[in-house]
Amino acid sequence: MSEAKPVTAAAEEPKAEQDASAPSSKKYEYLDHTADIQVHAWGDSLKESFEQCVVAMFGYMTELDKVDIDTEKTSELEVSGTDLLSLLFALLDEFLFRFSAEDFLVCKRVEIVEFDTTNWKIRVRGYGEPFDLAKHPQGTEIKAITYSNMQIHDDQPTHDVYVILDI
Amino acid sequence: MSEAKPVTAAAEEPKAEQDASAPSSKKYEYLDHTADIQVHAWGDSLKESFEQCVVAMFGYMTELDKVDIDTEKTSELEVSGTDLLSLLFALLDEFLFRFSAEDFLVCKRVEIVEFDTTNWKIRVRGYGEPFDLAKHPQGTEIKAITYSNMQIHDDQPTHDVYVILDI
Repeated sequence: MSEAKPVTAAAEEPKAEQDASAPSSKKYEYLDHTADIQVHAWGDSLKESFEQCVVAMFGYMTELDKVDIDTEKTSELEVSGTDLLSLLFALLDEFLFRFSAEDFLVCKRVEIVEFDTTNWKIRVRGYGEPFDLAKHPQGTEIKAITYSNMQIHDDQPTHDVYVILDI
Repeated sequence: MSEAKPVTAAAEEPKAEQDASAPSSKKYEYLDHTADIQVHAWGDSLKESFEQCVVAMFGYMTELDKVDIDTEKTSELEVSGTDLLSLLFALLDEFLFRFSAEDFLVCKRVEIVEFDTTNWKIRVRGYGEPFDLAKHPQGTEIKAITYSNMQIHDDQPTHDVYVILDI
């Protein structure tokens, strides 16, 4: 897993001093690349689609079949937004932040206990166990959730949601 | 190397029939991802920058140190454009096409023998040998050259060019 941060090509400027010191036989270099994956989740309700979307995010990091549920490590969190899109973003973002910065909890089951689309608030529990390389195959690091082309089709019978993740 | 073609997220529509047949416990899937690498090449002249850019493309496919020059396999080709950008695009695109569709020639040295910026035409020779997995480590497949954010800084002393490649 590369630690390189995605950069937009626009941010790149010629680096004259670097070029001058390069050997004359090789006058090129490879700059940071970007990569992303699109998650498509669905459910019998929008609530279930959101839950599935979180599980899908963790499923990309490792094989969830190898993850057990340690009930003592249950994560409970609350997120808020200003509409459905920002609510889904906040949900994923908060789980990703907690994973990276705090408990490394890989959630194989996610349960939204409060899905408030009036005040745009979600209260949710995540069940799993902390990531352990000895037990869990290393998948792909997810660097960020993106707003780009996020879609929520609540009018569909399968309540499809689409989210692009930076990897 | 994945054969998946990059798709824009906009092209994705809910696939209701597919969703319906999915097991109820797993209601998510991962859709095609996109990835790219930015090549930065430079030289004492723009001609050299263009040559280096082609070499850089092949250098991403394998280790050029492992590539010998088979003079009987020299590739000679001609491309044209309507300006500098389209000329560079055509140059890279033609080499990539030839590689994929015809001779699998990995060029470790590239020589532009005619660099006509009046009629936007390039005549060029590529030196190397056909790609051979027994000899050449497999790098990353380059799927396409992109026009996106292509840059040519001919006013710089190092004549920097930047090209994003889809991988």
